[in-house]
Amino acid sequence: MTIYAPYATIFDEPKVRLEQENPMNLVLRFTDDVEDRFQLGNKGANLVKMTRIGMPVPQGFTLTIDAFRAFMRERKLPVAEIRESIAWLEEVSGQKFGEGLQFSVRSSGPVSMPGMMDTVLNVKTEEELLTSAREVFSSWNGARAKEYRRLHGISEDLGTAVVVQRMVFGNNGHTSGTGVLFTRNPNSGEDELFGEYLPNAQGEELVSGATTPLALSHLQETMPEAYETLHDRVKELERHFGDMQDVEFTIEDSELFILQTRNGKRTGQAAVKIAVDLANEGLITRRAAVLQVSPEQVESLLYSHLEDAGDAKPFLTGLPAAPGAAVGRAIFTPEEAAEEAESGPVILVRPETTPDDIQGIAAATGVLTCRGGYSSHASIVARAMGKPCITGAEDAVLDISAGTLSANGSKINAGDLITIDGSTGNVYTGELELAQSEGSAELDELLEWADSTTGMRVWANADTPDMVAAARRFGARGIGLLRTERMFNEAESLELIRGYILAETASERRKALATLQDRQREDFIQIFKALGDIPLIVRLLDMPLHEFLPEGYAEGNERVANRRTEMAEVNPMMGHRGVRLGISQPGLYKMQVDAIQEARAEVHADVRLMIPQVMSQREAIVVKEHIDHAGLEVGVMMETVRACLRADRLAEHTDFFSFGTNDLTQAVFSFSREDAEKKFLNTYLEQGLLQDNPFTILDEQGVARLMDMAIRWGRDVKPELGIGICGEHGGNPESIAIAHQLGVSYVSCSPFRIPVARIAAAHAALAEG
Amino acid sequence: MTIYAPYATIFDEPKVRLEQENPMNLVLRFTDDVEDRFQLGNKGANLVKMTRIGMPVPQGFTLTIDAFRAFMRERKLPVAEIRESIAWLEEVSGQKFGEGLQFSVRSSGPVSMPGMMDTVLNVKTEEELLTSAREVFSSWNGARAKEYRRLHGISEDLGTAVVVQRMVFGNNGHTSGTGVLFTRNPNSGEDELFGEYLPNAQGEELVSGATTPLALSHLQETMPEAYETLHDRVKELERHFGDMQDVEFTIEDSELFILQTRNGKRTGQAAVKIAVDLANEGLITRRAAVLQVSPEQVESLLYSHLEDAGDAKPFLTGLPAAPGAAVGRAIFTPEEAAEEAESGPVILVRPETTPDDIQGIAAATGVLTCRGGYSSHASIVARAMGKPCITGAEDAVLDISAGTLSANGSKINAGDLITIDGSTGNVYTGELELAQSEGSAELDELLEWADSTTGMRVWANADTPDMVAAARRFGARGIGLLRTERMFNEAESLELIRGYILAETASERRKALATLQDRQREDFIQIFKALGDIPLIVRLLDMPLHEFLPEGYAEGNERVANRRTEMAEVNPMMGHRGVRLGISQPGLYKMQVDAIQEARAEVHADVRLMIPQVMSQREAIVVKEHIDHAGLEVGVMMETVRACLRADRLAEHTDFFSFGTNDLTQAVFSFSREDAEKKFLNTYLEQGLLQDNPFTILDEQGVARLMDMAIRWGRDVKPELGIGICGEHGGNPESIAIAHQLGVSYVSCSPFRIPVARIAAAHAALAEG
Repeated sequence: MTIYAPYATIFDEPKVRLEQENPMNLVLRFTDDVEDRFQLGNKGANLVKMTRIGMPVPQGFTLTIDAFRAFMRERKLPVAEIRESIAWLEEVSGQKFGEGLQFSVRSSGPVSMPGMMDTVLNVKTEEELLTSAREVFSSWNGARAKEYRRLHGISEDLGTAVVVQRMVFGNNGHTSGTGVLFTRNPNSGEDELFGEYLPNAQGEELVSGATTPLALSHLQETMPEAYETLHDRVKELERHFGDMQDVEFTIEDSELFILQTRNGKRTGQAAVKIAVDLANEGLITRRAAVLQVSPEQVESLLYSHLEDAGDAKPFLTGLPAAPGAAVGRAIFTPEEAAEEAESGPVILVRPETTPDDIQGIAAATGVLTCRGGYSSHASIVARAMGKPCITGAEDAVLDISAGTLSANGSKINAGDLITIDGSTGNVYTGELELAQSEGSAELDELLEWADSTTGMRVWANADTPDMVAAARRFGARGIGLLRTERMFNEAESLELIRGYILAETASERRKALATLQDRQREDFIQIFKALGDIPLIVRLLDMPLHEFLPEGYAEGNERVANRRTEMAEVNPMMGHRGVRLGISQPGLYKMQVDAIQEARAEVHADVRLMIPQVMSQREAIVVKEHIDHAGLEVGVMMETVRACLRADRLAEHTDFFSFGTNDLTQAVFSFSREDAEKKFLNTYLEQGLLQDNPFTILDEQGVARLMDMAIRWGRDVKPELGIGICGEHGGNPESIAIAHQLGVSYVSCSPFRIPVARIAAAHAALAEG
Repeated sequence: MTIYAPYATIFDEPKVRLEQENPMNLVLRFTDDVEDRFQLGNKGANLVKMTRIGMPVPQGFTLTIDAFRAFMRERKLPVAEIRESIAWLEEVSGQKFGEGLQFSVRSSGPVSMPGMMDTVLNVKTEEELLTSAREVFSSWNGARAKEYRRLHGISEDLGTAVVVQRMVFGNNGHTSGTGVLFTRNPNSGEDELFGEYLPNAQGEELVSGATTPLALSHLQETMPEAYETLHDRVKELERHFGDMQDVEFTIEDSELFILQTRNGKRTGQAAVKIAVDLANEGLITRRAAVLQVSPEQVESLLYSHLEDAGDAKPFLTGLPAAPGAAVGRAIFTPEEAAEEAESGPVILVRPETTPDDIQGIAAATGVLTCRGGYSSHASIVARAMGKPCITGAEDAVLDISAGTLSANGSKINAGDLITIDGSTGNVYTGELELAQSEGSAELDELLEWADSTTGMRVWANADTPDMVAAARRFGARGIGLLRTERMFNEAESLELIRGYILAETASERRKALATLQDRQREDFIQIFKALGDIPLIVRLLDMPLHEFLPEGYAEGNERVANRRTEMAEVNPMMGHRGVRLGISQPGLYKMQVDAIQEARAEVHADVRLMIPQVMSQREAIVVKEHIDHAGLEVGVMMETVRACLRADRLAEHTDFFSFGTNDLTQAVFSFSREDAEKKFLNTYLEQGLLQDNPFTILDEQGVARLMDMAIRWGRDVKPELGIGICGEHGGNPESIAIAHQLGVSYVSCSPFRIPVARIAAAHAALAEG
């Protein structure tokens, strides 16, 4: 009897920040030796840091978050300590409070929060200073601040500090002024100061927009020495903080003061360039550079997007099924789409798509369907091809014969320009301006650094030679999932597999398979040519055969109708598909493997075979009898719960596991994804029954827990077992972080998600410290 | 971090008999001190036992299974030891081998096996004895014996022994004879010798059937003393072996010899009576009595069955969906069935059944459908009602308007008598003889003893007052599952729930619910009256609402058609049903609970509520907000995998678990039961990919493993957590044994399976020793 330990994982509890036991500090000066942002807020902590490295910071002090808490309990401010600090400031500045010495009073929280009382300037009396501080503290409980915290899940326990700082005056004449700058260009990432300057003015005038500010070059021309000092000081800040800074400064009678600094916001393009430049300049490590760029920033680099929809109102909204934006003429049939695409971009608009629409989707720059969800045919194909897609636009009334698309009172005709935003689900009439995607040499460099931080690799799901080529271009280390359904769904092959299904004699079946094998051999040859030296996992046929005889095909043909009735299923997702097909029709799998072997004889390729929908080692053993003659590695798709529960046995009989997290999620939740997304998943998300859509972000508490057990059981038996994830989760940063914790060997995702996945994988590894 | 131990359970490995290290014994005499049937075979071991207790056994010796193995290795018999034993027998008997002393030579295996060389009589020489022994040993590898072992999974390692025994002669004149007897009546269980006797004959004549044997009373009349001795001797054997014996005897010159004894085969009725009588006579313990009766014997007591189909050939075969046999007139519509049933038994024959057929099924004595599987509507309803049912009789051509049922060249008309055997799936024309089911006082007594052996209780699944009453009659300790679907499916309620589904205003919806509540209150009152003081678990509505608007209902009505389209699902099993319905339509669950509360105000009842299809504690919490005002215990149906993976959290928020093993099996295997049983499950069973249908026998390696973890996690949090199983597995003996190992509190099954379940539960407990 093995000893049982109640199973627990890192996934069980959200991480919480531990309360630290510090002595109470109610008032801290910028010169004090405390930098804790949970005591001082971000602003206060940065002022301490700047003071410490000798920046010309107007001095002051902070009423800490401990003071905030005391205030909330007892409605009292630490007046004695405040007076002591004022006396200290009078001594340091040589000026009297209320005369030369005036203060600004600002809130300073660990997170910045709209709705908080922000700034009171020119505070001249203690009646005034205490009142301002009380107001800042009290504004923590203002309705807007509370609502913001609720919406963003910010803890009520965080609290806010108050920063009291000596005023300096940019409005003291023509040798005074105020400005803001970024230490590098926040759009392009170029290494140049980028900012604005207003002579003889205070900061509020710059922000209010009442006066048009001047370029920084004005300061350079009028006060070159002050500019040089500014340049040196802010570059010193950049070096110190190891990141591009967003700085507020004031010049008072030719003397420079730095009022505030923080890491600057930037575009994805700038983020990548700045991070790589900083690392190459030796200012930060390569690891820090990798951490500076978020997966979302990388993503924004790769998809076209709406520069700014501005006042444009969508006339139709659907599900954001595949990210990116596209402009094109709305075309309603795949044939016309293929034809029209030659004379300019088109958006394919369909009630929903089927395998027959593939050519149309391939020709279009974007896809819009009236029905379907995130997992509908259009979604999956478009995501895989890296094209924007909107599905489930249910308000649309599409009249294909009339050539019109109506929705919410608007109507467009076939051939009219529309803009779709697959990141939001919005559809606009006419052409909106798009920002085009751009890769860069810096991105390639950054991603190489990213790869070096982790042993977890990024592979790609790819079904065509083009996609295999794209995968390699984006840095895939392997093809983790090649679905072979496409090879049966192309027009001529489709007739062959239908012939196989409808065959009444073994001889007819054999003939259909033989011809299919010839076609698939040629197909594999093209794929292997694109593959180069990376490994390729071919998934044997998964889809139920009845999908090859859809309603509408060969109407009136009795043989087809009968076969269709025979094969009909109540719950096709859990029906006669995957390995069950391989068991009942062993000739199909053998044909596929023989086609692969024939192709390998012509083009060298590192091919591995994968069996879908397995639930027991017996299935793997029986299928292997039909395909082992090829001598290739054979793995199983882990997408049934029972496969996970029998992972130890499966590991004995197979070479690798690849988790199919889409189907596994369906099985763990007993949710049919298609039905769930149409029927009740939104209610669940809105009511907080689910925090995230488990088909987008891997379910930590359930699915990942099962995967964790399966991986441990499998590796107990075979420590060298290769383990991958090839569901759509493989391209999702949160899911990639979970994958890293699970210790998988690779995640496999759409080629166009690879850069995102590589940076996300690195972040996951670096988060472990 | 909790320490992780790779999870292992008792379910991991089949138990194997350990090889024992014994010294080689090639020849053993009946007087030797070895009783091991794996050395002597059953026959040899019983002869040793009888010798030991002083039975008049013709003496002899056994060539052991070690000798068999040595022979198989070296083709040599232990001739020296055989000679020694012959010399010993000559000494004991005072006769010379080949003269007065002759031998019989028989095979004696640990399991009896057709195809083995059985008996050589009157062996007079060593040339002959050795040859016979060699032939017996060699017959182990005969084609028929090998095939038998393969079919029955008997190990090739068992081997066989050879018994060499002194001949006694029943053909020695009128004071000699031979006979066989049972020590009690094997049909009724009455305590009387039951057997046959043939004077002046050897045993072979008795068996051959060439001569008609006489009743034992002949012996009693002609040789009263011999009869008395025989009676005393066989009763002594019965006492010694603690079971009814099947004895072969010979009388040689008025001297009685017992040649062989073994536990006698018997009917279910006899098994129960004999076991109870033996215990009440003090010959065996009550536990031993419980172990003497198999679940199958109890089952045979409860269902009508074909006495003997004899030469009758079925004209149609389907799936054996619900056990038992029935004779009746074939009727093709539920209305006619209800009418015709008043003038005699009818069999309802339908293409498939729907809730509209309920009255017809209730009126019929059996059900036959052309389509459907083990889980189709007809199967489930018929099993629940304890009626025989055959589904999926796909060769049937049913023409309802013509009133004919044709199959395989036969045709019957509506009203013709047919016989169905729901235990085999066979349908016969005309009336075959049935054996009727009978309970008995002995059965009740035995089941009470059974209950006292285990803490695991047997509850019932029951939906109607009649079924609740039946459940109590069969000894249910609670109702573990009352499905409320029926309360919506009766004609008038059906219109109300349809009104609710089709309502366009909240007010319409409220009105429909209010009327439904009145009807359901009355329904619950009837159920509570039947319930008495046992607890009742009511499962809140589980079925997807679209099932209330089946194809064919209100054809041409656009509102219905639109709503049906809106609600259609691709994989309804994993769609908008169960708790997902409770979340999106909280009024429905509240109405059900309010109806229960109103009914409880009139009739006292111990009611507990159960939420179906739960996958997270948040769902349970949200639903409880709508139903907690009733102050009833609330439990969850454990039928999604995620519920099992989150059992610790669910235990915090709920009062009990009930595993819905049907749906859980579907989710673990990713098998849609209905599709699987139609499409590929047979292939899996035939090819040995599955040993059993996991919907019949709980899957030890997968489903039970997950349940085991869930139970441990749940009880870690709440040790007193009540845990039940309410899938159909609850009535299956093998599954009940697994349930016992899992430590569940109760299994809940069809009322008509309760006696079977009670005996199976006891066997499971006693098997643990």
